[in-house]
Amino acid sequence: MNVTRVQRGVSRDASLRARSLEVIPGGMYGHQDVRLMGTGMPQFMERGEGSRVWDADGNEYVDLMCSYGPILLGHRHPAVEEAAERQRSAGDCQNGPSEVMVELAERLVKTVRHADWAMFLKNGTDATTLCLMIARAKTGRSTVLRAVRSYHGVAPWCTPSRAGLTVEDRANILEFRYNDLESVERAAERAGPDLAAIIVSPFRHDAGVDQELVDPAFARGLRALCDRLGASLIIDDIRTGLRLELGGSWEAIGVEPDLSAWSKAIANGYPLAAVLGSEEMRDAARSVFTTGSFWTAAVPMAASIATLDMLEREDGIGAMKKTGRALWDGWEAQAAAHDLEIRLTGPVQMPYLTFEGDSDHTEACIFARACADAGVFLHPRHNWFLSTALDERDLSDVLEATDAAFAAVISART
Amino acid sequence: MNVTRVQRGVSRDASLRARSLEVIPGGMYGHQDVRLMGTGMPQFMERGEGSRVWDADGNEYVDLMCSYGPILLGHRHPAVEEAAERQRSAGDCQNGPSEVMVELAERLVKTVRHADWAMFLKNGTDATTLCLMIARAKTGRSTVLRAVRSYHGVAPWCTPSRAGLTVEDRANILEFRYNDLESVERAAERAGPDLAAIIVSPFRHDAGVDQELVDPAFARGLRALCDRLGASLIIDDIRTGLRLELGGSWEAIGVEPDLSAWSKAIANGYPLAAVLGSEEMRDAARSVFTTGSFWTAAVPMAASIATLDMLEREDGIGAMKKTGRALWDGWEAQAAAHDLEIRLTGPVQMPYLTFEGDSDHTEACIFARACADAGVFLHPRHNWFLSTALDERDLSDVLEATDAAFAAVISART
Repeated sequence: MNVTRVQRGVSRDASLRARSLEVIPGGMYGHQDVRLMGTGMPQFMERGEGSRVWDADGNEYVDLMCSYGPILLGHRHPAVEEAAERQRSAGDCQNGPSEVMVELAERLVKTVRHADWAMFLKNGTDATTLCLMIARAKTGRSTVLRAVRSYHGVAPWCTPSRAGLTVEDRANILEFRYNDLESVERAAERAGPDLAAIIVSPFRHDAGVDQELVDPAFARGLRALCDRLGASLIIDDIRTGLRLELGGSWEAIGVEPDLSAWSKAIANGYPLAAVLGSEEMRDAARSVFTTGSFWTAAVPMAASIATLDMLEREDGIGAMKKTGRALWDGWEAQAAAHDLEIRLTGPVQMPYLTFEGDSDHTEACIFARACADAGVFLHPRHNWFLSTALDERDLSDVLEATDAAFAAVISART
Repeated sequence: MNVTRVQRGVSRDASLRARSLEVIPGGMYGHQDVRLMGTGMPQFMERGEGSRVWDADGNEYVDLMCSYGPILLGHRHPAVEEAAERQRSAGDCQNGPSEVMVELAERLVKTVRHADWAMFLKNGTDATTLCLMIARAKTGRSTVLRAVRSYHGVAPWCTPSRAGLTVEDRANILEFRYNDLESVERAAERAGPDLAAIIVSPFRHDAGVDQELVDPAFARGLRALCDRLGASLIIDDIRTGLRLELGGSWEAIGVEPDLSAWSKAIANGYPLAAVLGSEEMRDAARSVFTTGSFWTAAVPMAASIATLDMLEREDGIGAMKKTGRALWDGWEAQAAAHDLEIRLTGPVQMPYLTFEGDSDHTEACIFARACADAGVFLHPRHNWFLSTALDERDLSDVLEATDAAFAAVISART
């Protein structure tokens, strides 16, 4: 395939890693720490354009991570950049909100069925945490149920590691098993009259394990349980929003939450998060004091409106489903041809691939590195993200790379 | 003064307020809610350029709020915008950090004496909360001391309102009085062996009350107390950072914290926050899991480097001090001429004005509105922020407006 290849992970990347080790704890923190990906993957990125990204050494990749979700229409999408630049030439971070804040709120209320209002913030964590606070203000209760191992951000109530936490940080959190309504009922019983809310992702996308689509009966069961117990249902649509559905991710199965949390893809890479809520939650939302220095900044909101425009106008979700299906079918056929047992899980727009018996991700890391060597950027233990920018040439390049990567996994076994 | 005047608070602003009431709880939330400013002030902003801003109705103001801090060199500063655009044309939100993340971390470590490393985030709240987590990870303890009424963000442990909180959210927070070392000692005694950290702002800037500069003996006392008890000293430099000193705000008095939290002005309006720490805190920082979808975005980091360049090269802090002193002296002289008792408090770059006996801010609101009528944007119950963009013409326009505003306060009394 026609990608440039420079010494990956050597030269510039290696030099930046050495420098960053001096001035950033561990060199890099969080989900973009390349040590989660095994060896031989690039840490530092240089640029992106459409479906392609370049690392700090100038190596080109077809991008199947999309900055872990934010890039939905491809990097530097012209329509989004134009809208952002138009707003930027007026004002971004000002003494008050700009007109686009109202326009975007109106647009989201129109687009997302359960939503009667919107609030804007910066991080996904801001949005999930605000949802909990609104639900608690609404109900006057404290306990929140979440699925075991589910990721809802990095606030003390939800960050995956226990380092730096107090025992009180999780005092009001009880857990259930995803798609297991009985386990939710048991957790609700433990909460008793103190149940404020249930927070849940539209499908199970916990790090390092197979993804699991939601059982519609489970989703409906959560709604019924919340209605019965006077608790709020919160959908964490941060990772999924605008990739699965134009509205909320459970609209297709007819389940509407009281609150939903959004971020990542809603502004095609510009920093923005949102909480959407139903009419009954409005007064509670108003009662909570929340704010941030950059929350009313206008450029990400203009970018978000342009993103929604493009996605709607060009049926971007349909395009991602079609691309995702073609890749999924291609990977299954390739694995079968190589006599490799793989599992592909999740929605086709956000696939996750595991190798049978590869619980420590050794083979997934070999696969990801071989893909990188062949010019495709994906992650060995995190779901991937497709964008609408992938074209026929990208698909063919991806499948050429993954075929070689499946062969590399076989080679490593012998 | 030469500002355009359209019907302020009517027409476009009024129409946007009506629309926002439908789709945003209460119409607007947080610190930019214009209802905090009395009546007749504009809610929606249109654009900014240098020292001037325009509201949604096209009215022009000399800006003394600077977007509540983020704007340090003036709106759309050419050097910052150029650096941002250069980075934007490559990549912003990518699959990994960009070279500028290392460059900015190196620059901050060089600029801020206590800092040996940096981590980047999006909100001030992210930074203060991460500081608490790092201090807790370092000490294995939970209790944190903060000043009564001090603002450190909107996480459940610190947001000013109790709506949406659980009792456990504040279980590990004890309070002291600013500049009162004995009250800190008492709080530390209550914490006993569980004292993890003390978090403190460089001066007292609580909403709605006179500001109070730090007593150097108080600052030194906090440092000594933390050293004696094995706790971490955290300076919340979010509102103050880069306006008071180029390094940390207590460098001039010789007190170095273990951790400091930064945001607002560090990228001249681009969304960025940072935690800086000393060598002894590095491993603890590394142990905490924290991340965000937009935290490694490169454009705000490029903007931050350009902001630091400009501030250093042109002695921006010296310029703000000079402007601030001229305004301060001018306001005192004007008030005296009007026979008005006022109090000006805080550093001259971040002044706060109150009228004697005006505990409910009635007169401050009259003053702010009269300033707005005369083309100067400032807040009746929040400290103001100067930028380096204010020139002689701005100063003269501001003083002309405030003279009329003092007269308006007198008029309203009779």
